[in-house]
Amino acid sequence: MAMLRYPHGFASGATPSLRVNGARLNAHLAALSEFGKNPQGGVSRVAYSEADRLGREYVLGLMRAAKLNVSVDAAGNLIGRRAAALSDDSLLPILIGSHIDSVPEGGNYDGDVGSLGAIEVAQTIAENNVLLRHPLEVIVFQNEEGGLIGSQALTGELTEKTLDNVSNSGKTIREGIKFIGGDVSKLSTVRREKGSIAAYLELHIEQGGTLEAEKIDIGVVEGIVGINQWNVTVEGFANHAGTTAMNNRQDALLAAAKFIQAVNRVVTSVPGRQVGTVGRIQAWPGAPNVIPGKVVLTLELRDLDAAKIQMLFEKIRGEANQIATLSRVTFDFKGINTNIPAPTDPRVRAIIAESAKELGLSTKQMPSGAGHDAQDMARIGPVGMIFIPSIGGISHSPKEFSRPQDIENGANVLLGALMKLDA
Amino acid sequence: MAMLRYPHGFASGATPSLRVNGARLNAHLAALSEFGKNPQGGVSRVAYSEADRLGREYVLGLMRAAKLNVSVDAAGNLIGRRAAALSDDSLLPILIGSHIDSVPEGGNYDGDVGSLGAIEVAQTIAENNVLLRHPLEVIVFQNEEGGLIGSQALTGELTEKTLDNVSNSGKTIREGIKFIGGDVSKLSTVRREKGSIAAYLELHIEQGGTLEAEKIDIGVVEGIVGINQWNVTVEGFANHAGTTAMNNRQDALLAAAKFIQAVNRVVTSVPGRQVGTVGRIQAWPGAPNVIPGKVVLTLELRDLDAAKIQMLFEKIRGEANQIATLSRVTFDFKGINTNIPAPTDPRVRAIIAESAKELGLSTKQMPSGAGHDAQDMARIGPVGMIFIPSIGGISHSPKEFSRPQDIENGANVLLGALMKLDA
Repeated sequence: MAMLRYPHGFASGATPSLRVNGARLNAHLAALSEFGKNPQGGVSRVAYSEADRLGREYVLGLMRAAKLNVSVDAAGNLIGRRAAALSDDSLLPILIGSHIDSVPEGGNYDGDVGSLGAIEVAQTIAENNVLLRHPLEVIVFQNEEGGLIGSQALTGELTEKTLDNVSNSGKTIREGIKFIGGDVSKLSTVRREKGSIAAYLELHIEQGGTLEAEKIDIGVVEGIVGINQWNVTVEGFANHAGTTAMNNRQDALLAAAKFIQAVNRVVTSVPGRQVGTVGRIQAWPGAPNVIPGKVVLTLELRDLDAAKIQMLFEKIRGEANQIATLSRVTFDFKGINTNIPAPTDPRVRAIIAESAKELGLSTKQMPSGAGHDAQDMARIGPVGMIFIPSIGGISHSPKEFSRPQDIENGANVLLGALMKLDA
Repeated sequence: MAMLRYPHGFASGATPSLRVNGARLNAHLAALSEFGKNPQGGVSRVAYSEADRLGREYVLGLMRAAKLNVSVDAAGNLIGRRAAALSDDSLLPILIGSHIDSVPEGGNYDGDVGSLGAIEVAQTIAENNVLLRHPLEVIVFQNEEGGLIGSQALTGELTEKTLDNVSNSGKTIREGIKFIGGDVSKLSTVRREKGSIAAYLELHIEQGGTLEAEKIDIGVVEGIVGINQWNVTVEGFANHAGTTAMNNRQDALLAAAKFIQAVNRVVTSVPGRQVGTVGRIQAWPGAPNVIPGKVVLTLELRDLDAAKIQMLFEKIRGEANQIATLSRVTFDFKGINTNIPAPTDPRVRAIIAESAKELGLSTKQMPSGAGHDAQDMARIGPVGMIFIPSIGGISHSPKEFSRPQDIENGANVLLGALMKLDA
């Protein structure tokens, strides 16, 4: 790559040794953790809460300090722009960012690392007078945890119905957007057309334990998994737990127990990183002395490959049919949610891996089992995600933790990848 | 047995061919079913409801028609006395009866058959001028379904704490007793000392499917099973259902599913009529996309033999320990309820079987898997229970049904057994 010098700084391709200020980034993370801090650790900074509003104010200040031109879009997303420094104004913007809202009783890393990491990258660029060919936008999406609301607005998929949903703050999303300075009557201005961005890069904690367990520095995300959820209803026959002999029972909970084991058996019966979970269960009538006649539980399957999810589901349904016959119950499956898999861009993946390699960091290609705003952004343009280790794989918890060095590494990979994309 | 003639009737031992009026008994059952009748069938005649109060008025009328000397004791039990007709006034009373309160959305047979069957027996005795050696008491216990409240008053075990419990009627038991004409300040007058009754006989529907399935007319109850209940807490680790690999999970619900199967396996692994049930379950946090970190479920074991219950529990706890190790979870058992088994009297059992045989009815010795007032009465004196078939084994349901002929058979066995006991 040619080294180009300009009067007032360096072009992006010319600065392979550029590094973020890791101490500053970690200090900013600690400062952000004060907003919505819980006595037992972590934060409750749910979207549209007062803690969220104050946290966003803090972030806007960091953006300004990074010489970004800040605005709040009509959906309430925070945007900090750095203009393209070079001649060709027609290049599409590169977006980098994440979110700062948390789940109730969440941690200090999910979203925050990527948001403040992106701002740190922008500040490093500003301090080093790097001249980018593409416009840069640092974006902090609003209400990621409540359903990727901010990024849905960018894809134009934020519906009137969703706006009326009540969020964890107690406010509807409509009320919440107003609270954080957006304007739902102008949501159409937020929409980005397909092909309107050069790329979107997101740094994030893994939220799983793979990188830590395997002592890998950086996860190069292959895509955000598809998620299929069903309500499964098991119907047997409720009867007296004292007078109904064991061989005369149509125990819906016993059948459900067999089903839960079957889900685990099927999901682990084939190679790969697919996961399957039964997270919610209720039995009726739900008394210690009555054989349950009805059970409703949830089934969730996730994988990068929608066909594999379907294959696993068919196998699970086959097992359910066998249990139904043996236990004299019925199973009914009702789909409640489907997110299709969102692959990341192969070229962006290669650039992330190369940037890590240049920094001497080990990498692993892996799926993101969790949803991220990047999955919405993948509908608009090429996306890439950079994972750093989560200690113990714990997330959505006050115990969530990522090491300062890993955070610094992640931000440096983000910086390096941005420079390569720009060049 | 000597045939003795008396001026105004027959002595109890002298009337082997005496029979109840089955048509009348079934008509009375149909009439009682109007009190608290539900549109979808069956009744909601929970204790202390207006339906209960009116049903009790109807029953008092039947008692009076059967020439019984009626009273309401301080606990609210209905008592109809027939004095001993023969010389020896010192003989202890024989009690026969059951209850007429129902569970919410219950059926028309549980309790009613034994209560109206006992009154029919008394009416048959009155109509035939049978002279009994023992005083006879027909007793209709109040609030059997809410915890054997009426019979607890007879054993002196109705505590102040229980009186403050809120019943299904919405009234406390204290308020309910007042509502049905009792007087809690005089509960001590209701108490019967151990050894103060000659016997207590109760006719009841089986509430299970054994008699119908095996085409047996009469169940001779060996005893009322002991009931042990535990709350079982399974603790794993709640984590993200998307990012936590299958082999890194500490899924409390998967472990609970294995436990539910283990309960079934252990309980059915040894011969006998013991039963084991998991009737209630809850998983936390209970979201489709979170691996459950904690599950609380109930375990109930019932058998006639308390030692067998203990043996089964130890086996189940052993299985739980194995699951705990394999699934990296913990199990904690907390006893929440223990009813010790109440065997019936061998002599009374033999008399019931003999009475059935004389009527040409087939019999089977069996436990009562359900609780009954007879288990309290067993602490005062010898008890016996007569079961008739429940179609489909269905009870505590509008679908509860016993055939008119079986009801008539049961009342005739009750009559025959009473005569033998008296003689």
